[in-house]
Amino acid sequence: MRKNSQLVFLPLGGSGEIGMNMNLFGLGPDHDRKWVMVDCGVTFGDARTPGVDLICPDPAYIVDEAVAQGGLLALLLTHAHEDHIGAVAHLWPRLQCPIYATAFTGELVRRKFAEKGILNPPLKIIEMGARFSLGDFDFEYVTLTHSIPEPNGIIIRTEHGIVLHTGDWKIDIDPSLGPLTDSKTLTEIGNEGVLAMICDSTNVLTPGVSGSEMRVQKRLMELIAAETGKVAVTTFASNVGRLVSVCLAAAQNDRAVCLIGRSMLRMMDVAEQTGLLPDHISFVEMKEAGFLPDDKILYLCTGSQGEPRAALARIARDDHPAVVLGEGDTVIFSSKIIPGNDRVIFDLQNTLVDLGVKVITEKDEFVHVSGHPCRDELKQMYQWVRPKYAVPVHGEARHLQEHAKLALELGVEESLSIRNGDMVRLAPGPLEVIDQVPAGRLYIDGLIHLPEGTGVMRERKRLAEGGFLAIAVAIDRKGRIPAMPDIIASGMPLSDNEGEDLQEIVEEAVDAALDRMSRQQALDDDNVVRTLRRSVRAALDPVWGKRTDIAILINRI
Amino acid sequence: MRKNSQLVFLPLGGSGEIGMNMNLFGLGPDHDRKWVMVDCGVTFGDARTPGVDLICPDPAYIVDEAVAQGGLLALLLTHAHEDHIGAVAHLWPRLQCPIYATAFTGELVRRKFAEKGILNPPLKIIEMGARFSLGDFDFEYVTLTHSIPEPNGIIIRTEHGIVLHTGDWKIDIDPSLGPLTDSKTLTEIGNEGVLAMICDSTNVLTPGVSGSEMRVQKRLMELIAAETGKVAVTTFASNVGRLVSVCLAAAQNDRAVCLIGRSMLRMMDVAEQTGLLPDHISFVEMKEAGFLPDDKILYLCTGSQGEPRAALARIARDDHPAVVLGEGDTVIFSSKIIPGNDRVIFDLQNTLVDLGVKVITEKDEFVHVSGHPCRDELKQMYQWVRPKYAVPVHGEARHLQEHAKLALELGVEESLSIRNGDMVRLAPGPLEVIDQVPAGRLYIDGLIHLPEGTGVMRERKRLAEGGFLAIAVAIDRKGRIPAMPDIIASGMPLSDNEGEDLQEIVEEAVDAALDRMSRQQALDDDNVVRTLRRSVRAALDPVWGKRTDIAILINRI
Repeated sequence: MRKNSQLVFLPLGGSGEIGMNMNLFGLGPDHDRKWVMVDCGVTFGDARTPGVDLICPDPAYIVDEAVAQGGLLALLLTHAHEDHIGAVAHLWPRLQCPIYATAFTGELVRRKFAEKGILNPPLKIIEMGARFSLGDFDFEYVTLTHSIPEPNGIIIRTEHGIVLHTGDWKIDIDPSLGPLTDSKTLTEIGNEGVLAMICDSTNVLTPGVSGSEMRVQKRLMELIAAETGKVAVTTFASNVGRLVSVCLAAAQNDRAVCLIGRSMLRMMDVAEQTGLLPDHISFVEMKEAGFLPDDKILYLCTGSQGEPRAALARIARDDHPAVVLGEGDTVIFSSKIIPGNDRVIFDLQNTLVDLGVKVITEKDEFVHVSGHPCRDELKQMYQWVRPKYAVPVHGEARHLQEHAKLALELGVEESLSIRNGDMVRLAPGPLEVIDQVPAGRLYIDGLIHLPEGTGVMRERKRLAEGGFLAIAVAIDRKGRIPAMPDIIASGMPLSDNEGEDLQEIVEEAVDAALDRMSRQQALDDDNVVRTLRRSVRAALDPVWGKRTDIAILINRI
Repeated sequence: MRKNSQLVFLPLGGSGEIGMNMNLFGLGPDHDRKWVMVDCGVTFGDARTPGVDLICPDPAYIVDEAVAQGGLLALLLTHAHEDHIGAVAHLWPRLQCPIYATAFTGELVRRKFAEKGILNPPLKIIEMGARFSLGDFDFEYVTLTHSIPEPNGIIIRTEHGIVLHTGDWKIDIDPSLGPLTDSKTLTEIGNEGVLAMICDSTNVLTPGVSGSEMRVQKRLMELIAAETGKVAVTTFASNVGRLVSVCLAAAQNDRAVCLIGRSMLRMMDVAEQTGLLPDHISFVEMKEAGFLPDDKILYLCTGSQGEPRAALARIARDDHPAVVLGEGDTVIFSSKIIPGNDRVIFDLQNTLVDLGVKVITEKDEFVHVSGHPCRDELKQMYQWVRPKYAVPVHGEARHLQEHAKLALELGVEESLSIRNGDMVRLAPGPLEVIDQVPAGRLYIDGLIHLPEGTGVMRERKRLAEGGFLAIAVAIDRKGRIPAMPDIIASGMPLSDNEGEDLQEIVEEAVDAALDRMSRQQALDDDNVVRTLRRSVRAALDPVWGKRTDIAILINRI
């Protein structure tokens, strides 16, 4: 064992929040560690980050600490959900390390790179259950079950002992696609002795078990059998097991399946390409589907989260080139509501109901199961692995704290509820936070990676609140104003409740202020800006009752 | 009976959406009807209406049709929830009619008027169960139970028969405040014969019953008994029955109650003023509360929906002048998650957990009941009233449709799932939509009532997406540009991923475009705008990967 060598764990994303998982394992003495990153995901922006669709962890710490010195050995991917792989193609130019993934995950990542014009990323495609070494780390992928093909835990063997990083998992005793949980290997490492388990916390607040995919498949078969009109099913495109279930439910009811939506087509294409699809699954093209009787077709659609540009929303607002739904037809939401999306999903469902469509959701029928372990499944995992230490990840504060508590009840010696940036020593010695490193967020703003806290979001929110008013005034060297100022407004009402034109109110206020201004005053930019702003505010604010962003531009001629 | 007289019902808000209820009853021949409005509420803006906190129904139809001719007899209020009274003070200047309300509702409305500087609104305070006539209408308030004091249904007697407008209700068999449902009167009108019932649909998708307030009170007593640290309870301030329950639960556990948050203080004040509070309820001031031991205090706080400026959010971010919570303390969310608020509520709960606070929600314990009727309660109401026709209101499309279906199952002759703007003839003849009238939304934008669809929201969303860039250029009569253009940006990143200054990129593009422009071209505004915009986009878009709003201002000197 190298002198002062430590095994540390460091989450830069996903601990204290749902989404954008980025976990690091470090081995070696302080300041001379080799690092391996596990997963590199995104989360989605919301009203608090206007203009930003994707947010990822800021990798600055590991870039500064390790990349330049060749200290980042690899990025290992557990599975292909966006919150685990969505940032890879964005951040890889700064990470510059090889990327390990199984076939399905790897192919999806390869396509993401291609979209960004990176055609030869250093992707190492490995088998399920593969074992390989990097530096002093020995890695073994262990097959789990989840809501996407090829979900893997990672067994990390070092001189300090064995660590299991679970990734995302559930215990599906009857999955619709892919192998069962490799409980044999989990039990074996449990027998060998596991130092620490880094484990999924998503559903720790939910008692019982998450339920199996085959139960969903069976219920879908029954529900579809009861329908005589067109049926559309929407679900997460990455849940290929669910897509297969829907296909089988359709086949049993003598319905052809037509895939609608780009990510649905892409996922099925990748599943096909990587050999995951059963032989007997086939699809009809959109143009063929139109000729089939209503009771012979099933549309498998994107858009379960109410995304306005996805297939189902387009169908609902009668804006889809090929699919029309109405009276007698049925839409099954084989999905859950991701927090933040409830309002748009309900609106979508109402729009469908207004068309006469019957809407079935997981609230009405057993048409969805979670991909994450509920409490009884967690209990089973701890029984298999019997780790000495537990470090819950993949959850908000509530989840991590409850999971840490549960782990103690399940017999671990120590557990820690940590947050992004907490560096935890797993060995040697007791489980302990030994450092806190910068762990911020990067907003993916178009092509630009915008660190949080720059003020840009605040500016955008202010613009969203009250628009802006740009006023340009030309002033000559003697302080004279030889031309009418130009004024442009955006995001402001045109008129007040009595119909008075707001732009005119502004123009009058500007003219009045300039009339009153002496030539001397007009020579001072700050004075011009202050005077114009004050005059416009005095006239506009009482009428509108709120404040716009005023930009005063001065051309000194 | 007057010739051609009809009794019509017209919802302008709340039918096809949750919130902003505005219902109208019309009596008389077409174009000579007298109208009564029941309720006048708001709904809350969201990311789709940036800058707008409140939205209310556009009353233009009834203003044009009735107000000038004295055809709007009155506004009757059923109860004091914001979605029933929130627009009164905003819209009354256009409605100019007397307003009928019971004491508690009336006092809250009076205060809303006072805030807008209207000191003598024509408020008629009536007793619970009051009966009075307006024109050919005969009205009788009927006492129901709900999640606010003084909830009323309205019995409307006309020459065409009896209509029951339920308002919002549940059947609370054991309320913590106020009388039971007046089932006697409901049964009596049922015996008399009811033409139509206009009824709350909120919980029609939920089986069973909503549950009683006293059960919540009992559970709160037990939960608080188990705590030794400080306890804070957050709930909807208007649910005075719940507030009383919390006070009694505190008293039983020898804790003093301290009210935190303006709307909590206001509601208790109005409840006190209108004689609703039991005698033995009392409170401690904030400054006293600080001296009490942890196990002797209970804070009753606003902020159950995660509102950033409300008491609980301020406490969570340690920004409250008097209340500090931490390890060993407990916060009970005696509330539900209103759709759209889940993300901010979870964030608030996580922040509390990070402080060491124990968080209890309705997911964990029986600490909340809904104020609206579930299916078994609806069944009971239909059994009491036995209407001939049913017109479901107060719900989204899904709810109205399901309610209309349920009503048929419960024995009504006809039911109609209608939407805002559908004018329904209740009598004479079959239940039928006889007209569709304009029924839009008004955005309360500061003091301005902004009709939907003006483009202002679109502009604000665009500004929120990518900010703006204002470029001012002065051009003389010969097409010469005698000065440096002025440029102001807002909501744009400062630099790209390589650290290059975006403002400089813009400046260079502007300078290059102006250099290339001939004097002739510079004399044409459209040409200047087009050329500058194209040049800036060509330079900026490839670097940023998205588009800002470009305003070109020209000073012709």
